[in-house]
Amino acid sequence: MKQNDQLQVNALSDVEHLKVHGRTTGCLTPLTLFWTGSAIEFNVKGSELWIEVEADYDVYEPWISIVINSVPVSRQMLTAGKYWICVFRGMNNSVVKNVRIVKDVQAMSGDPDCSLQIHAVKVDGEFLPVADKPYKIEFIGDSITSGEGTIGAQAEEDWIPMWFSAIHNYTAMTAAALNADYRVISQSGWGVLTSWDNNPQGNIPEYYEQVCGLLNGTKNEALGALEEHHFDTWQPDVVVVNLGTNDGGAFHSPEWEDSLTGEIHKQRLNDDGTFHKDDIQAFEDATEKFLMKLRKNNKNAHIVWAYGMLGIPMMPAIYRAVDAYTKKTGDKNISVVQLPNMTEETVGSRSHPGVLAHEQTAKELAAYLKDILTR
Amino acid sequence: MKQNDQLQVNALSDVEHLKVHGRTTGCLTPLTLFWTGSAIEFNVKGSELWIEVEADYDVYEPWISIVINSVPVSRQMLTAGKYWICVFRGMNNSVVKNVRIVKDVQAMSGDPDCSLQIHAVKVDGEFLPVADKPYKIEFIGDSITSGEGTIGAQAEEDWIPMWFSAIHNYTAMTAAALNADYRVISQSGWGVLTSWDNNPQGNIPEYYEQVCGLLNGTKNEALGALEEHHFDTWQPDVVVVNLGTNDGGAFHSPEWEDSLTGEIHKQRLNDDGTFHKDDIQAFEDATEKFLMKLRKNNKNAHIVWAYGMLGIPMMPAIYRAVDAYTKKTGDKNISVVQLPNMTEETVGSRSHPGVLAHEQTAKELAAYLKDILTR
Amino acid sequence: MKQNDQLQVNALSDVEHLKVHGRTTGCLTPLTLFWTGSAIEFNVKGSELWIEVEADYDVYEPWISIVINSVPVSRQMLTAGKYWICVFRGMNNSVVKNVRIVKDVQAMSGDPDCSLQIHAVKVDGEFLPVADKPYKIEFIGDSITSGEGTIGAQAEEDWIPMWFSAIHNYTAMTAAALNADYRVISQSGWGVLTSWDNNPQGNIPEYYEQVCGLLNGTKNEALGALEEHHFDTWQPDVVVVNLGTNDGGAFHSPEWEDSLTGEIHKQRLNDDGTFHKDDIQAFEDATEKFLMKLRKNNKNAHIVWAYGMLGIPMMPAIYRAVDAYTKKTGDKNISVVQLPNMTEETVGSRSHPGVLAHEQTAKELAAYLKDILTR
Amino acid sequence: MKQNDQLQVNALSDVEHLKVHGRTTGCLTPLTLFWTGSAIEFNVKGSELWIEVEADYDVYEPWISIVINSVPVSRQMLTAGKYWICVFRGMNNSVVKNVRIVKDVQAMSGDPDCSLQIHAVKVDGEFLPVADKPYKIEFIGDSITSGEGTIGAQAEEDWIPMWFSAIHNYTAMTAAALNADYRVISQSGWGVLTSWDNNPQGNIPEYYEQVCGLLNGTKNEALGALEEHHFDTWQPDVVVVNLGTNDGGAFHSPEWEDSLTGEIHKQRLNDDGTFHKDDIQAFEDATEKFLMKLRKNNKNAHIVWAYGMLGIPMMPAIYRAVDAYTKKTGDKNISVVQLPNMTEETVGSRSHPGVLAHEQTAKELAAYLKDILTR
Repeated sequence: MKQNDQLQVNALSDVEHLKVHGRTTGCLTPLTLFWTGSAIEFNVKGSELWIEVEADYDVYEPWISIVINSVPVSRQMLTAGKYWICVFRGMNNSVVKNVRIVKDVQAMSGDPDCSLQIHAVKVDGEFLPVADKPYKIEFIGDSITSGEGTIGAQAEEDWIPMWFSAIHNYTAMTAAALNADYRVISQSGWGVLTSWDNNPQGNIPEYYEQVCGLLNGTKNEALGALEEHHFDTWQPDVVVVNLGTNDGGAFHSPEWEDSLTGEIHKQRLNDDGTFHKDDIQAFEDATEKFLMKLRKNNKNAHIVWAYGMLGIPMMPAIYRAVDAYTKKTGDKNISVVQLPNMTEETVGSRSHPGVLAHEQTAKELAAYLKDILTR
Repeated sequence: MKQNDQLQVNALSDVEHLKVHGRTTGCLTPLTLFWTGSAIEFNVKGSELWIEVEADYDVYEPWISIVINSVPVSRQMLTAGKYWICVFRGMNNSVVKNVRIVKDVQAMSGDPDCSLQIHAVKVDGEFLPVADKPYKIEFIGDSITSGEGTIGAQAEEDWIPMWFSAIHNYTAMTAAALNADYRVISQSGWGVLTSWDNNPQGNIPEYYEQVCGLLNGTKNEALGALEEHHFDTWQPDVVVVNLGTNDGGAFHSPEWEDSLTGEIHKQRLNDDGTFHKDDIQAFEDATEKFLMKLRKNNKNAHIVWAYGMLGIPMMPAIYRAVDAYTKKTGDKNISVVQLPNMTEETVGSRSHPGVLAHEQTAKELAAYLKDILTR
Repeated sequence: MKQNDQLQVNALSDVEHLKVHGRTTGCLTPLTLFWTGSAIEFNVKGSELWIEVEADYDVYEPWISIVINSVPVSRQMLTAGKYWICVFRGMNNSVVKNVRIVKDVQAMSGDPDCSLQIHAVKVDGEFLPVADKPYKIEFIGDSITSGEGTIGAQAEEDWIPMWFSAIHNYTAMTAAALNADYRVISQSGWGVLTSWDNNPQGNIPEYYEQVCGLLNGTKNEALGALEEHHFDTWQPDVVVVNLGTNDGGAFHSPEWEDSLTGEIHKQRLNDDGTFHKDDIQAFEDATEKFLMKLRKNNKNAHIVWAYGMLGIPMMPAIYRAVDAYTKKTGDKNISVVQLPNMTEETVGSRSHPGVLAHEQTAKELAAYLKDILTR
Repeated sequence: MKQNDQLQVNALSDVEHLKVHGRTTGCLTPLTLFWTGSAIEFNVKGSELWIEVEADYDVYEPWISIVINSVPVSRQMLTAGKYWICVFRGMNNSVVKNVRIVKDVQAMSGDPDCSLQIHAVKVDGEFLPVADKPYKIEFIGDSITSGEGTIGAQAEEDWIPMWFSAIHNYTAMTAAALNADYRVISQSGWGVLTSWDNNPQGNIPEYYEQVCGLLNGTKNEALGALEEHHFDTWQPDVVVVNLGTNDGGAFHSPEWEDSLTGEIHKQRLNDDGTFHKDDIQAFEDATEKFLMKLRKNNKNAHIVWAYGMLGIPMMPAIYRAVDAYTKKTGDKNISVVQLPNMTEETVGSRSHPGVLAHEQTAKELAAYLKDILTR
């Protein structure tokens, strides 16, 4: 093998022009990527580029996708260790390439050891500035927003990182259609009030103000996951909340018992199959409260509750909660929109929306957001 | 990181149930994959699978795609060295997974150092038999058949392995639609008589009877690339020849001069832009001769000359050559079919047919071959 | 021209097997078709079929479509007069043809002289029974449901019958997808509370219990349009209400003044562009009241408010009204669903949803209703 | 009914601005439309337009489609008689409408009594000039080109005019895509040498130089159908010949016996299912001769033999015939192109290509012709 003698190693913190996507602590020595869709982006003039990554996990390994000039070219599992990955080689060194290395899997609340870090880059050329896009969008969601099921055969049933994708995902597609930078806050199985299995700790709102507060363990704490997020560093134009699917599921799941306290939680159905009045109200209260928290931290963003890719049983409650919020606050910079339901033709793996469902959602959501962003 | 203590290493030659795709020497210690679309395939019952690869190159690095239960899940560049790659982990160990690791780049006649080998596998379960599919198809072609341009942005111009794909390729799609095993013999820029730049050595027929005779250098010779291919080990039901595009291009390219002998070759145009009679006849003669060679080695296969994804200037000559062949031999188990032309909407990178063009071709070609295979 | 001597004239009332679609008075001497999508349907064994129609109008002429074996084959304007129309001729007289002659234009509240009647049929064979379909659906709506804009170039601006269609219409498509009989109650520009121009008489609910009460003039009265409709003769499984678009438009239109009384009506906007509290409440009250009327007459039907093909500004009010209705009545056999918004690609003539928009709506609505009908 | 007092009758010959499509005798008193796709076209400024037609037939009645501003709005059977048809009414009289009334059925060689004439127009406004389009295309073909099977359910089997369409037809679609005027010469079942049933009189070439010479009977003769066509009045840029499908079918059909002379004709197959050498040569000779005739009458047109919508068994013979023609004449302004084969998804009624097949063909053919027209 011929060595490329021109390659020079730079610590990430020494790279002049670098764009980080996704909530991080701001630290670059090294950079820890927590959320799905978080990424580093470069404009590189050179023939060859490498990045030094460090991955670890107990159960769920990280995956990355490499996107060159807006097109995905590689996707790979990152096994444990610290090593160099070649992003490209043999290219025309006088042409600028836009490169994005994207975390392709959600933050893993179920694996305290899971981490993905980037230490350094190696290049035989130079980095040029990466401009911000005209809009910023924050997506908040569950497994749908984590892209669970967008990779793999329909028959797949294992809950593993391989079936997740940040790329074949309505978040990335919607942002691309609108020429927007974006961030994702998401966790499979979680909701506004509880997770799908009635666990009240599986709620996104509680952790919304931390960098990545739903992660556990001392390692994540040391990495800064539990730090307060500084909202002033990145104010979105739109916040899209795609939650409620698991809150709806909880009504049909067995009760959850806290193994420590013995406390029990269950969202109840009436005998006729409708939602118990108190429990649906609890969801509405949680939604209203979450809206308060979103508004507190995102003063000027239009908030869109976007729901419906796996049915719309919670839609009346969502509309009521948004109504109640608006009545109390007078805030009208908020709306609700129904997303297209998954069909037999658009289902992916693990009975989740597949890439066709994400494409359809992105098309409709981007059209809806375009009206809002340009009015 | 938690270690999986159940993993056991097996040399590839010790794996009982293993299916190799593509022309090879038959050697498994290690297995060398030469052609694009060549692969190893397993049915694995286990939770975790690794393969040990060895890659090398001077210029053009190999890439692989991993296909699980018929769906591509990973695609990565293989940098130089000998190392383990994790195919999957964390899966249900009682379920059988079909796994195919596919060479995603063509044999590289321009880089004598380029090689891809597989030494061993590591698994915590067992391998089960992989059945043959009901049909066998051999595809012979040029850059189109090598999948050049099926990955990457339209703006890409570098000639590098990254823009090639064996997966987003009409060969793989056609075979899948027909439930067929398949092999690919292809080289970018090459033709029946000469390559696009009039080099008479850039012709596929000359090397058709070797394992991968168009490779150069002592290493490839040692790997067995120049060995005679044993056609009796794999007799296709259909041979699809997608050649002629570069032979047509040669008429519009400058003459080629042999740097050693000073010999010059040029396919000439008349003043009115039509093909010079002698030179188009030389193409027809080469085509006829190639058909003889194909028939000699594939006694019962239906031969289909399938041409047209980048225009049809050579079609009359192809029809004439096939007519001449049939007249001389009486062989009627041969036909010509026009493939759909690439359009502005279906172009990929490097001005080559993109994935949409390959999908359209696969749809039409599979329908055409289905009639032949089932009549 | 060769005469077909076998043709025999039958008054419609003498035809043994005949199916009438759409609300009518029940009279067959002759049959008056009022609503768009209303039709007569035959199963005919014979080579040739004619119908005797009578059309009149002052401004807006009727149109019909002829549908044979579920495929539209003819569409024509019916100029004033009483005359015979040939439905088909020259067909195999031993084969049964399913034939539907469909009124392709809405009831015309703006033209008291507009009428379409069918007097007789002429056939050289026999009529066979027409079975009912397994489901019945009633659609209630405005111009969208009347199919305004589904025919004609995008540039068309005239408000004329030619641009309406009952066939290229989500109502017909949804019913076909669900194998359902269906009826349509619709009027361009009308709403739940007022029409698009704030006219409080342009509301569908007021006329819902009559055969076709929104028609005017002594002729229509004589034809029975103002008679009470007998709901027990046709009880739908689902009532789809696609209203609200014009109620929303009224907020953006000038006030309406009653030319007789001088009474003024105007749905008001606040200075910040949001809906005036009292006026949106008036819409919600009207919606709630309409739901009461729908339930009174359709005891077992699932009621679906389906809205959104031209934006969703009224959706929060619709959800509130349905909530209020459910709270008061305990009736939970009702839901709201958002229809896909028209886009630049799916717009038809007169800035209305085109046939592509109707197809998309039908696909999503049929999937939604299928869940309801089969649970 | 309110009368429009402004309407004024004009004999067609008195209309200043009028465009006639399709081969005719030039006579306007009245105008006889022979071929499918033939038409009259107006640019009308007025609110209302009528045309006076006269139709007759013994077996096969004529149909027309009305196209307004390039969009089909009406399609109807024309029963026997002379009468007025309303094209539009109630439109804005200050806006210019482009109107085309199109014969929707082929010339009927099997019904000497079939005729369609246009005598006069009635309008309340004025006619403006209709410009020629930049290109002219002539299509020559059989049932495919006559649009047989593009209307109606797949189950339809009757051979009747209702299932034909000039509008849902690759000819109209291709011309529209290229912004071209076009004419069609076509007859179901006919070929270059014989019809599908081996009748040597069912060949298009013999009648190519007459206005519509394949029609029979004294009436057609009186109407001028047998007159010599004046090619200098309309010279196409491209002649598309879509023939060969019935010539291929003849090999698989029983022999034909001339009822008068007892003469027998049969295109024979060899025992192995291949074409008899002499009979396929007869087809090639006929093709070559037809090319001579086409070139004689269309000096500058590019001739394209476009074949393949129902399989490609005759393609080698077509290529040979074109080669032979080119060798003899030196004429290189000719090419062959394969059209996409009909599939299960694109089949229409009567086992013929449906509208989806015509759309696919039009897309590919238009792209092919665009290259030729713009090079």
